[in-house]
Amino acid sequence: MMEPTSGLLELFDNPNPNRDYLIETIAPEFTSMCPKTGQPDFGTMTITYIADKHCFELKSLKLYLQQYRNYGAFYEHVTNLILDHLVEVTQPRWMRVEADFTPRGGIRTSVTVEYGDQPE
Amino acid sequence: MMEPTSGLLELFDNPNPNRDYLIETIAPEFTSMCPKTGQPDFGTMTITYIADKHCFELKSLKLYLQQYRNYGAFYEHVTNLILDHLVEVTQPRWMRVEADFTPRGGIRTSVTVEYGDQPE
Amino acid sequence: MMEPTSGLLELFDNPNPNRDYLIETIAPEFTSMCPKTGQPDFGTMTITYIADKHCFELKSLKLYLQQYRNYGAFYEHVTNLILDHLVEVTQPRWMRVEADFTPRGGIRTSVTVEYGDQPE
Amino acid sequence: MMEPTSGLLELFDNPNPNRDYLIETIAPEFTSMCPKTGQPDFGTMTITYIADKHCFELKSLKLYLQQYRNYGAFYEHVTNLILDHLVEVTQPRWMRVEADFTPRGGIRTSVTVEYGDQPE
Amino acid sequence: MMEPTSGLLELFDNPNPNRDYLIETIAPEFTSMCPKTGQPDFGTMTITYIADKHCFELKSLKLYLQQYRNYGAFYEHVTNLILDHLVEVTQPRWMRVEADFTPRGGIRTSVTVEYGDQPE
Amino acid sequence: MMEPTSGLLELFDNPNPNRDYLIETIAPEFTSMCPKTGQPDFGTMTITYIADKHCFELKSLKLYLQQYRNYGAFYEHVTNLILDHLVEVTQPRWMRVEADFTPRGGIRTSVTVEYGDQPE
Amino acid sequence: MMEPTSGLLELFDNPNPNRDYLIETIAPEFTSMCPKTGQPDFGTMTITYIADKHCFELKSLKLYLQQYRNYGAFYEHVTNLILDHLVEVTQPRWMRVEADFTPRGGIRTSVTVEYGDQPE
Amino acid sequence: MMEPTSGLLELFDNPNPNRDYLIETIAPEFTSMCPKTGQPDFGTMTITYIADKHCFELKSLKLYLQQYRNYGAFYEHVTNLILDHLVEVTQPRWMRVEADFTPRGGIRTSVTVEYGDQPE
Amino acid sequence: MMEPTSGLLELFDNPNPNRDYLIETIAPEFTSMCPKTGQPDFGTMTITYIADKHCFELKSLKLYLQQYRNYGAFYEHVTNLILDHLVEVTQPRWMRVEADFTPRGGIRTSVTVEYGDQPE
Amino acid sequence: MMEPTSGLLELFDNPNPNRDYLIETIAPEFTSMCPKTGQPDFGTMTITYIADKHCFELKSLKLYLQQYRNYGAFYEHVTNLILDHLVEVTQPRWMRVEADFTPRGGIRTSVTVEYGDQPE
Repeated sequence: MMEPTSGLLELFDNPNPNRDYLIETIAPEFTSMCPKTGQPDFGTMTITYIADKHCFELKSLKLYLQQYRNYGAFYEHVTNLILDHLVEVTQPRWMRVEADFTPRGGIRTSVTVEYGDQPE
Repeated sequence: MMEPTSGLLELFDNPNPNRDYLIETIAPEFTSMCPKTGQPDFGTMTITYIADKHCFELKSLKLYLQQYRNYGAFYEHVTNLILDHLVEVTQPRWMRVEADFTPRGGIRTSVTVEYGDQPE
Repeated sequence: MMEPTSGLLELFDNPNPNRDYLIETIAPEFTSMCPKTGQPDFGTMTITYIADKHCFELKSLKLYLQQYRNYGAFYEHVTNLILDHLVEVTQPRWMRVEADFTPRGGIRTSVTVEYGDQPE
Repeated sequence: MMEPTSGLLELFDNPNPNRDYLIETIAPEFTSMCPKTGQPDFGTMTITYIADKHCFELKSLKLYLQQYRNYGAFYEHVTNLILDHLVEVTQPRWMRVEADFTPRGGIRTSVTVEYGDQPE
Repeated sequence: MMEPTSGLLELFDNPNPNRDYLIETIAPEFTSMCPKTGQPDFGTMTITYIADKHCFELKSLKLYLQQYRNYGAFYEHVTNLILDHLVEVTQPRWMRVEADFTPRGGIRTSVTVEYGDQPE
Repeated sequence: MMEPTSGLLELFDNPNPNRDYLIETIAPEFTSMCPKTGQPDFGTMTITYIADKHCFELKSLKLYLQQYRNYGAFYEHVTNLILDHLVEVTQPRWMRVEADFTPRGGIRTSVTVEYGDQPE
Repeated sequence: MMEPTSGLLELFDNPNPNRDYLIETIAPEFTSMCPKTGQPDFGTMTITYIADKHCFELKSLKLYLQQYRNYGAFYEHVTNLILDHLVEVTQPRWMRVEADFTPRGGIRTSVTVEYGDQPE
Repeated sequence: MMEPTSGLLELFDNPNPNRDYLIETIAPEFTSMCPKTGQPDFGTMTITYIADKHCFELKSLKLYLQQYRNYGAFYEHVTNLILDHLVEVTQPRWMRVEADFTPRGGIRTSVTVEYGDQPE
Repeated sequence: MMEPTSGLLELFDNPNPNRDYLIETIAPEFTSMCPKTGQPDFGTMTITYIADKHCFELKSLKLYLQQYRNYGAFYEHVTNLILDHLVEVTQPRWMRVEADFTPRGGIRTSVTVEYGDQPE
Repeated sequence: MMEPTSGLLELFDNPNPNRDYLIETIAPEFTSMCPKTGQPDFGTMTITYIADKHCFELKSLKLYLQQYRNYGAFYEHVTNLILDHLVEVTQPRWMRVEADFTPRGGIRTSVTVEYGDQPE
């Protein structure tokens, strides 16, 4: 079980850095492992951001998220880690990661993490 | 009929206490007893919070909520009690409990209780 | 046709008067009579409030609303009257009544009435 | 409390009696009284038929159904009675009445009654 | 108020008359006038058929249906008339017209008329 | 083609002019003519307002809107005209008209017009 | 933990035994215990039948189903047992029980059991 | 504008030719050109079949359907042509193509074409 | 990458082998690998059967399906393999496996495989 | 592959330039080409604005958007370009373009771009 790293994320130049605008990417096929039970978890990752100099490329995001497929971690840790990696690489003006996990034992959970101040 | 207590709730360390972020947990299989008619009530509990030092563990939340299965109390009392227990144990920066009960006599009710000031 | 009165409404003590919290009650089986055509009207009443000393009891609310079953009045009058009665009896910190009526002649109408200032 | 009668139902000539065709009328604002508790019941009546010489007129159906507003009877009885009245007056080639009642005590019920053989 | 005629309907050759296949056309913006009240009626026309030598052209169907805009007739008559016109002009192997009208007085009605035997 | 006028609109006294409250009326069966193509347009009108001395009567609103049935005008003009007429006649404290038209050429449009300042 | 019995079920006379007609009762607030984990299970019971001499009374059905609240049994056993009890007491011409349970471990299950031959 | 051909379709061996089983492929991003107006059409293609010796490969189906992007043809012709090509190449035991096009002028159409006899 | 085997599947005795009844299990968190691209696939497995002597246990089904997590195979092969394994172990009277996969390249596919003759 | 230009966009005079009001146009049949893979992309364009002197005409918007049909560009670039063209030609008081693209590789993206300050 390898710790996911930000190395797979690729960038392209923001086509309009003079303008604050929203990019939202929804990845409903996220899966990781529960560190406690060893069972797979499933969820949807929603990443919303205002790019500065760079945008992340979608194919590379997909490969980045696939690193979690056999990685065991709690929901709260996974969500914070993804935000940290994406912020480190894209250096956005603002970013939010919302993780919505499917029910376990009849209970479902979502975690929402932000970086920076959201412009109005 | 035993009074539910906060004793079953277990904690784990907030993996990122430097950051204000939202955790939302939805438990749609809540059931308690109506103190007036002795009939079971059913509802969905939605718990949203910003953790400080600790998060509550989901399996222990499930066991905590099962204490209400044979406990008789009004909607308003149940919802306030759950918030009080969760605040006492997790000491969050902010927390909200929303309880949505299924219809009785064609009328349905929800109760929403908050602790602390919600950060923007 | 008797004028509905607030006499049927019963109260119980607010289990947590130290806290401002929301109670929302939805009654989708409301029916009254149109004073102009004599035909029945149908609608959903949504009552949302922050209790002060007292909450209204749900069974008594149901009986209270049934007084309108054979009572003829315009939508706007009915909605204001229900708010007035509920405020008079429960003395809430804040209250809103929203009435959504089913279509007549292809047109549907809702009326929303408030009492007091809604706390943030 | 008057027993509903078929007297209010009015007819018009089937514009095309040479053809078997379906007419379906849905009345979602049906209400009657529970004979046991004295409380109002609410439901949706769906009437489907193949007319022979006559169709029932919709305004008169509405007035016919309003007779049940203050009439107390069990679901099963109400549904059979409506079918009997409609068959008696319109003499259809085939007819079905489906009654879907809203939940009571968390349980909802529908009753479906037919007259004649449904043509393929 | 002119009686609608089939004259506006245009045809094109069935591109594959050797094969029985289904064509379904849904026109949700149908409107006519109620002959009793003089008020407009609104509905959705669903025309399903197996063509023989000819298919009807969609733009001409639209113009054909617009003839009913200021024409007064009962639901049952309108539906039978549309089927008769379409059968007369297209001579299909099988055809069905389903007309779903919006609610009046809380009651909605649909009429379904067929021509020929539907192949399995 | 007659220009619609406000003459058909009738009023009744606001039953509670001491209170600012919302009235919302939704008319999904609106139809007018496209001035460019001569084809009918279809849409939903949503009128929301805070009455001052008078409310508009619903039957008269229906007749007022039917004036547009054979009237040709662009979406933007129609929506502004309806607001102007309703404001002229009812003199509300605040009013909004939202018009949602069905798709043409795969594109659908809505127009939202306001009068006065919406109270919080 | 007491074994549920059919003793709580009450009957009333079928108001129209000369006619085969369908009665469908849906109870979405069913709960029992998992015999393996000791955790509560939740589901919806749909009971459909053609009565012979007797119908079951709804309030008594509710009390009958509440016997399972603290009873531990597998899905397949619970569903067969409910059908057996209802057939024993009501002696219907035909009956079906469908049990839809909420997900456990991301997997949900339903069980459908029939008695007798369903008339066309 | 090139006529689409079946040449792009690729096959793979049916992994279980001893068994009749259903494969359903839904392609909601189909677009072609209207031969009359020169405007693009949009629709969803649903292909259902029972393979004999071969299944079509999905990537090659996608490329095959993209040939219609700048090709002008009526709905009925397009649907028959796609079925003919797929049958010619895969030689299935049974196949159905359903094409659902988006509305034009407020009217939407679907075409359903079959090859062979569907096994029960 | 290990080939999945039926070895993980566990059974329990059919509680009512005298009766033909339906058990349906839905597993929406299925994931496998595409043998062509090496990318993960996601889908929902719906297993419906009439048990003979044995039912499969749900926890063991979950573990069985998790074997596919890192296994590469085409949709058609995966679905046939799952049916073969379940039939081999449970020896049902009838069984169907329906696999619905999420879209790839804008195209989604389902595969439905049956064993035995479905009783009416 | 020609670069799209604003030349096709046509204007008409704002019928009420004295009033700030919202116009929202939704075009769900947008398609362009991916510059990386050469495959078509599909999406929905939602254009919301407050006109100053001119509104854009809908037929011309449709033709304008069709220029992207065989044009290859990234989501972020396409959305910014459309806003730039529409602002250049209509000179609005405020405008927003939201582009929602369909999933690729299980991931979907939307881009939202604004011009000017949105009035309250």
